Amino acid sequence: MRVIGIDPGLRSLGWGVISVSGSRISHVANGQCAGSGTEMAERLLSLHAALTAVLIEHAPDAAAVEQVFVNTNGAGTLKLGQARGIALLVPAQAGLPVGEYAPNTVKKSVVGVGHAAKEQVQHMVRLQLPGVDLSGPDAADALAIAICHAHHLGSAAAMSRATKVRA
Amino acid sequence: MRVIGIDPGLRSLGWGVISVSGSRISHVANGQCAGSGTEMAERLLSLHAALTAVLIEHAPDAAAVEQVFVNTNGAGTLKLGQARGIALLVPAQAGLPVGEYAPNTVKKSVVGVGHAAKEQVQHMVRLQLPGVDLSGPDAADALAIAICHAHHLGSAAAMSRATKVRA
Repeated sequence: MRVIGIDPGLRSLGWGVISVSGSRISHVANGQCAGSGTEMAERLLSLHAALTAVLIEHAPDAAAVEQVFVNTNGAGTLKLGQARGIALLVPAQAGLPVGEYAPNTVKKSVVGVGHAAKEQVQHMVRLQLPGVDLSGPDAADALAIAICHAHHLGSAAAMSRATKVRA
Repeated sequence: MRVIGIDPGLRSLGWGVISVSGSRISHVANGQCAGSGTEMAERLLSLHAALTAVLIEHAPDAAAVEQVFVNTNGAGTLKLGQARGIALLVPAQAGLPVGEYAPNTVKKSVVGVGHAAKEQVQHMVRLQLPGVDLSGPDAADALAIAICHAHHLGSAAAMSRATKVRA
């Protein structure tokens, strides 16, 4: 199965697709979409179109989006929310279940600790997806989210098997 | 021409469509969409579908969305941003230009003063759109936004005519 991770940011939206087979994962593609246009509605429209094209091209079976930290900068949080709305909408429109993970959960899943630096996350993404060519920091974060989601799906499947055996 | 006003809120998204002919305006329809589902992605998807259906049914030629106040409640602002992202996206997808107005600009345009109470806005909306049956407070706000946009479009058209006469 294929999993897409999405990291919505203020300036660019990172995405990363991995292939998951049992406990093995491999890299499929990653990239960053920048909204174009001067008006907010235009930028959201271009973001929506770009992310929809990614889903059509790479046909993931599951999606996950990072939960974002909110700060006291209300205007920034509102803009981030608008981009995040698109990041959640597009996979839902494709009929995919959308997982949401806190940044610390993603880091813990990929690096082993919840308070890892951005560079550590990128290093571990490169280690776990040999040969990956990262489009940028947001794409690296998106791949980390996809890896985190794959781990959780794997645990859920193992749990389900264990329950069935017991039943 | 028809103008749709949209007021994205945390629990419900208000919309109102008016018909504009010169300086005369009349009511077409208004309503409130509530996102359904437990997951945020699901709720945004249902909001997107409901607002898209409104645009298909009432075929507006222009759209306007209220700029929102942001406060120190980061989580609330983020959620509001997500709903607002959908409110901006849907008319942009229909190829409509999307105006944005600050709440005070809307109040000033409809009531005459920038710091009007919600009840005053509803009263003036009812006066300016005789026979209107308001679906709720968010729908009333949405109609006020549509009236504000109609005024601004009217002023812009008058300005353009004046410039042409002078040229």
